[in-house]
Amino acid sequence: MARTGRRPGLGGTRERILAAARSDFGKAGYEGTTIRGIAAQAKVDPALVMHYFESKDGVFRAAMQFPVDPAEFIPRLLAPGLDGLGERLVRFFVETWDSPAGSPFLGLIRSVVGNEDAAAQLREFVTREVLGRLARALELDQPQLRAALVASQLVGLAMLRYVVRVEPVASASTDELAAWLGPTLQRYLTDPRVTKVNRRSRRRR
Amino acid sequence: MARTGRRPGLGGTRERILAAARSDFGKAGYEGTTIRGIAAQAKVDPALVMHYFESKDGVFRAAMQFPVDPAEFIPRLLAPGLDGLGERLVRFFVETWDSPAGSPFLGLIRSVVGNEDAAAQLREFVTREVLGRLARALELDQPQLRAALVASQLVGLAMLRYVVRVEPVASASTDELAAWLGPTLQRYLTDPRVTKVNRRSRRRR
Repeated sequence: MARTGRRPGLGGTRERILAAARSDFGKAGYEGTTIRGIAAQAKVDPALVMHYFESKDGVFRAAMQFPVDPAEFIPRLLAPGLDGLGERLVRFFVETWDSPAGSPFLGLIRSVVGNEDAAAQLREFVTREVLGRLARALELDQPQLRAALVASQLVGLAMLRYVVRVEPVASASTDELAAWLGPTLQRYLTDPRVTKVNRRSRRRR
Repeated sequence: MARTGRRPGLGGTRERILAAARSDFGKAGYEGTTIRGIAAQAKVDPALVMHYFESKDGVFRAAMQFPVDPAEFIPRLLAPGLDGLGERLVRFFVETWDSPAGSPFLGLIRSVVGNEDAAAQLREFVTREVLGRLARALELDQPQLRAALVASQLVGLAMLRYVVRVEPVASASTDELAAWLGPTLQRYLTDPRVTKVNRRSRRRR
């Protein structure tokens, strides 16, 4: 979250580390990338990478310009329990996008749609950091599926409200969006019937 | 739908008309663009534009590479009535994307996300041709809102399944997707409570 407050400082060192990180994550994926490798490519000490970004997740989030930290916001949304979680998620998502912190999201969507590497990185990050955290906390059946369905509705909301700007979704208030989409997310998250589908024919490609 | 079957023929005339159409729609919008203007810019007779594309809508759809004709598929989906319309919409959407006719969709999403003009054109087209048709047919309160909510879920599905490829949504069968998302669309389309929200505070920009 504090990312925008930290400017380069050391003559673009931070930007050089991020460029090295993007290159490494793009080539080797999240698991195959190390702080040490990023540091070597950026010609800095690994301790400096840690100083700027605190962890591999931190470098990754910054390299992707992901504007919020799932380790912070997911526990906060879950704290009041499962009741109303759908509405809280919609509110958090919309309020973040509408705030100054949300402006990088549009860039993130653009880079993901135009670039296979960026899409793979975001998929990995969202799967592990966002959906994985939700999944473990929910302790319900098929949490990965539930979280993916939630993501599908929120990403679609972002596309209609911020990218294509279709009314009345584009100018609706947070209250309206929470009322319209909250029950959808709540069903995906907690309705036992959602996951009772016969998973017969897998899709052919 | 028959678009892929019609190749240039007259030494790229069709492509020249489409280039002129993209330029005119981009500058003047849908309403401000005429068959006559497109023909003049492409240096062909207006009758030739009609021969290739039948109508201004036809040119527009081809210029955007919109792969299906709403005038054809929306009445077909609505014919069996409102019951199960949500599931039928999901099935139609997924089956079209998964078929060869669906391949232009990815290009459409890419151009819309990267280009304000393309986004405005798609917004206008989808609002008038897709959402407008659904709205008139539904004869329910706030049909435009209902159709926009449906679009938000379908676009989000497309992003997760085809662009970012998040599992299990990416490899799920049509049956599964219909069961997961059908009730969401059905609620957006026909549940009277959806539109009973207090539309108080409009969003500030």
